[in-house]
Amino acid sequence: MFVLNNTLEADSVPIVENADLLIRLINDARYPWILIVPTVPGASELHDLDEDLHTRTMSVARKCGQVLKQAFNADKINTAAIGNMVPQLHIHVVARHKGDTAWPGPIWGVGEMEPLTNDEIARRVELIREGLADLG
Amino acid sequence: MFVLNNTLEADSVPIVENADLLIRLINDARYPWILIVPTVPGASELHDLDEDLHTRTMSVARKCGQVLKQAFNADKINTAAIGNMVPQLHIHVVARHKGDTAWPGPIWGVGEMEPLTNDEIARRVELIREGLADLG
Repeated sequence: MFVLNNTLEADSVPIVENADLLIRLINDARYPWILIVPTVPGASELHDLDEDLHTRTMSVARKCGQVLKQAFNADKINTAAIGNMVPQLHIHVVARHKGDTAWPGPIWGVGEMEPLTNDEIARRVELIREGLADLG
Repeated sequence: MFVLNNTLEADSVPIVENADLLIRLINDARYPWILIVPTVPGASELHDLDEDLHTRTMSVARKCGQVLKQAFNADKINTAAIGNMVPQLHIHVVARHKGDTAWPGPIWGVGEMEPLTNDEIARRVELIREGLADLG
């Protein structure tokens, strides 16, 4: 049975979740940041997914990048499956802006997360949900 | 017309290259590290690729991860499209080992590259080429 990793769950809130994939917003004011988690028990690497779910997962990641770029006027999208600290397979999609805290370096392991207000969480979730719905 | 970015070219050697995708080895002794570059002029984001080439690109990335994990006995594969410094779209697939230079952090922006010997370049290229051929 699949159970979302405790750290991933504590750091994020749901945007769109279905049986195969969780799309969640990381609660961090520093970057508009989406987390995608395929609900496959024990999966740690992209190649632990079967080809069909891998394709669907990366298609969702591509759409999330497209939505973040437009909705948050990002300079660059960073998409990554790393998982050195949390082995449960998860894909980050992050809107980067020139001059953000970690720019031009990667965001992982840099500084501390800064919680969003509830209003800002709701605003980001709604923007992303609408953007994904528009893409179909 | 597509021209491989100068930095990407200087840092890597060909493994398998076809009309759509370049698969190259980064010349860095610290990590077994593959670079995948779709040959689309002006592409910077994954969503700059059409859906078909995106799917094929990520399918190749998935296979490269599978090959690196086995051939280099990796503890974790890191797969990422970042591009904050070099905007030409490129995907990194990196074999990570517990205790490597940057572990458990990401590798980008950490330390200096360490050139491989020519023999070790040839060995890595051959291992990866054979692994990809076996996967079909």
